[in-house]
Amino acid sequence: MPHFSHKDINALEHLYKINLINSCSGYKSANLIGTKSAKGISNVAIFSSVTHMGSDPALFGFFLRPTTVVRNTYDNIKETGFFTINHVQESILEAAHHTSAKYSANISEFDVTTLEETYKNNFWAPFVNGAPIQMAMEYIEEYPIKANGTILLIGQIKNLYIQDDLLETDGFVNLSKANIIAINGLDGYALPILKTRLEYQRPKNLSETKS
Amino acid sequence: MPHFSHKDINALEHLYKINLINSCSGYKSANLIGTKSAKGISNVAIFSSVTHMGSDPALFGFFLRPTTVVRNTYDNIKETGFFTINHVQESILEAAHHTSAKYSANISEFDVTTLEETYKNNFWAPFVNGAPIQMAMEYIEEYPIKANGTILLIGQIKNLYIQDDLLETDGFVNLSKANIIAINGLDGYALPILKTRLEYQRPKNLSETKS
Repeated sequence: MPHFSHKDINALEHLYKINLINSCSGYKSANLIGTKSAKGISNVAIFSSVTHMGSDPALFGFFLRPTTVVRNTYDNIKETGFFTINHVQESILEAAHHTSAKYSANISEFDVTTLEETYKNNFWAPFVNGAPIQMAMEYIEEYPIKANGTILLIGQIKNLYIQDDLLETDGFVNLSKANIIAINGLDGYALPILKTRLEYQRPKNLSETKS
Repeated sequence: MPHFSHKDINALEHLYKINLINSCSGYKSANLIGTKSAKGISNVAIFSSVTHMGSDPALFGFFLRPTTVVRNTYDNIKETGFFTINHVQESILEAAHHTSAKYSANISEFDVTTLEETYKNNFWAPFVNGAPIQMAMEYIEEYPIKANGTILLIGQIKNLYIQDDLLETDGFVNLSKANIIAINGLDGYALPILKTRLEYQRPKNLSETKS
């Protein structure tokens, strides 16, 4: 079983290291975050760190580095207070991945990819047309992370739109019905198939257990 | 397309709401976090919020609520400074899911499930035997989140163990070769298959674009 110590990891070549460490958290969500600057230039960028933080209030967080390509996303959210989260299905994968290229702030990724922007209910930020799940998000707060200079940015759902056939009677959203993608590492894309839903678990009667 | 406003979401019945909002971040990682109290009682619990935060240093974060079942995990990490992250493959799914049951701190989930604890290189916290990726983690810092009372806990990889056949020559780890699971919502488990790896993207020459 290959083994890397802390010291081994530090000594790895850069690309090997980021491939390795990015794979080791497990599968990641694939989301396009849409924003628009105060001047009206739209932006869309792929993120793999959007994480559920709580349902009441409905909060999601994601991590960004202000010094890289995601500066446009961060700047636009700080200027306007709003963004969208849109899920990536298999059919838009290549265009979604291309949004990771470093375009300057005066170029909209909607103009250089096949992704189309769309607007709903007078919300400031653009949605990705046809995305199976679309969320209008309001900035709530942020935490600068001392350990590595990233920022945790937290937003709350203002409006949520879901493709008809995904929503089940108990509120569960079946992501695999829309061919929504999961991310493996830095550049791997996987297609998950729902296998099972398991029941709420209560402690076993200890006489039933192996001990 | 079903639409939920902020107000609609607030008014939803509790179980419907948590099913819905938990599904809307996209696929989540499936990880077993192993800990051991200062008194020597081990604990293992499933988490869906482990997120890659950076590769240099190699940091992962996850969210926990000190008032629920995860109190044991948090208390043990705070007492000892160490934990493990272990990936969930399809063959241990039911046992992994059962660790979400609320056992008291004096009962080890290793004693009430088929999961087996194992120890490596004198590391304090238990690994899950047979997990295709196992990481020894050291506590770095935490952030209490004002918006909902959760805690972001950050750890650094001290040692990383990967099943032989998953590691590719450029450091990429092929999660689907080990049947590693992704989580959909609160209780849905999906099996992803790697479809493609896409190249590093640079901006297009604008004359090639649709605009």
